[in-house]
Amino acid sequence: MVATQSSQLAVLRRTSTARVDATLAALFDSRLDDNRKLDNRQAVAPRLEAAMRHGLLAGGKRLRPLLVYMAGHALGAKDDALDAPAAAIELIHAYSLIHDDLPAMDDDDLRRGQPTVHKAFDEASAILAGDALQALAFEVLSSTAHPRLGNLVYTLACASGRDGMVAGQALDLDAVGGHPDVDALAHMHAHKTGALIVAAVRLGGLVAVADDDPRLNALTRYAAAIGLAFQIHDDILDVTGDTATLGKTSGADAARAKPTYPSLLGLEGAQRKAQSLIDEAIAALAPLGERAAPLADLAHYMIERDH
Amino acid sequence: MVATQSSQLAVLRRTSTARVDATLAALFDSRLDDNRKLDNRQAVAPRLEAAMRHGLLAGGKRLRPLLVYMAGHALGAKDDALDAPAAAIELIHAYSLIHDDLPAMDDDDLRRGQPTVHKAFDEASAILAGDALQALAFEVLSSTAHPRLGNLVYTLACASGRDGMVAGQALDLDAVGGHPDVDALAHMHAHKTGALIVAAVRLGGLVAVADDDPRLNALTRYAAAIGLAFQIHDDILDVTGDTATLGKTSGADAARAKPTYPSLLGLEGAQRKAQSLIDEAIAALAPLGERAAPLADLAHYMIERDH
Repeated sequence: MVATQSSQLAVLRRTSTARVDATLAALFDSRLDDNRKLDNRQAVAPRLEAAMRHGLLAGGKRLRPLLVYMAGHALGAKDDALDAPAAAIELIHAYSLIHDDLPAMDDDDLRRGQPTVHKAFDEASAILAGDALQALAFEVLSSTAHPRLGNLVYTLACASGRDGMVAGQALDLDAVGGHPDVDALAHMHAHKTGALIVAAVRLGGLVAVADDDPRLNALTRYAAAIGLAFQIHDDILDVTGDTATLGKTSGADAARAKPTYPSLLGLEGAQRKAQSLIDEAIAALAPLGERAAPLADLAHYMIERDH
Repeated sequence: MVATQSSQLAVLRRTSTARVDATLAALFDSRLDDNRKLDNRQAVAPRLEAAMRHGLLAGGKRLRPLLVYMAGHALGAKDDALDAPAAAIELIHAYSLIHDDLPAMDDDDLRRGQPTVHKAFDEASAILAGDALQALAFEVLSSTAHPRLGNLVYTLACASGRDGMVAGQALDLDAVGGHPDVDALAHMHAHKTGALIVAAVRLGGLVAVADDDPRLNALTRYAAAIGLAFQIHDDILDVTGDTATLGKTSGADAARAKPTYPSLLGLEGAQRKAQSLIDEAIAALAPLGERAAPLADLAHYMIERDH
């Protein structure tokens, strides 16, 4: 727990993390500390599933599930209906980290303080584990009955693919060694991390309201702003943080001459930019009223976290 | 066109290939030979999309879409409702080939007579193109309105992931250098290629009938049998075919000491096994009556094709 988050936010984070971790663990029938359950799921390919679990269950901030729950609550959805979208978006996020860490991509050895999947297993297992986690996201999402299920699946698929997260990763790889300006960097981040953060609030919102409800647009503006602030803060932490707290190698961006907000705007300029995005995010929440207070708390926390 | 297929089958193959190719090309707004269209889709990451197109639009047998259409027709579905599932399953198949060809996996340089995606582009682009094609499959499938959309998405997701295709690929990689018996080989193939072929007929069928309709089980038995026969025939062609006709390197299995049906049963034993599976497939079609005649034709063709 970090001092700067409100106690209400801290409770919400613990609750939503516990819910999504339980949903994810149940996918593997991994009733840890409960040996009474004998009808465990039989994995077709046990090594594959071990690699999937390594990438999925080794912790992480569970930010996207938190956003699903918070956005859903803000529009009146119940937890039970939010569990599947929350798990699905974390599955997409987990798969993307496994693939991003591959030698052909960012070539990272360490993630969340653990060896990356291709280090703990091997490259082929890491590729396949990512592929299977993506499929599992859509399996989990479609296993629930919801009147707007098509809309939910479509939202997740678009945010994940060539118009969203994967496009962002491709733009990021293209940018290494190049000289993008701040706009190009924002464009890349809007896809690489922003698309899934926007999808998180939209999924939560869509559980409660129809897709033409204007409050979904308010959530979208909020999420786009905190998504970019989140990324800028990540860049800042790469400069100011240490490897032990981050759970990944600090200074990695500078080491590979990767363009970042601090490298383009300076450290203070990047901090000012992040703060103005948080102000923008909170302003966007106005149409949601009192129920959006936790989302505002989260926006503040977003640029105060130390990892 | 191959002499051994009936003229009716030849027509169905041409029609369904043309339909699915049109659906897939439209996803990229690639109106080839039509320069009048100026409102082309703007790709966020053009190099990524070029890699996706290279893997997707370079031809291929389009067997899975054909099965979607045929199974759908056999239960009374119309083409318009089958286009999205047909395209979705081909997108999954295309992504799996791109990833299977990667250096960390089968390390193939040639596919359908063309350089593989990581050869024509680079490894990172090939990983991302596969990832984006998988997301696109679920985007396409969920963009249609269908009363059983959840069922369709769930069927495709389960068949693609850790209980289906990806599990099969993982088992296949585990088996290289090992000594699996015929049962283990069948188990691997049932997942690696069988799961998606079964999903193809189930998707087509689900467009027309509810998921408890017993004719779906008949289609499943049919598809499981032709799926394995298809794979055995692939193994046979790797021994008897030549690289130019196959469009991929012949003799590749033997070169990497990969266990195959011909290596375990001998060439004639493998051919007998394939034939008995085709007999089984055709017997399974009995509950579907006359409308399943094209599926029976296809079963015969499955082990007569030369590539």
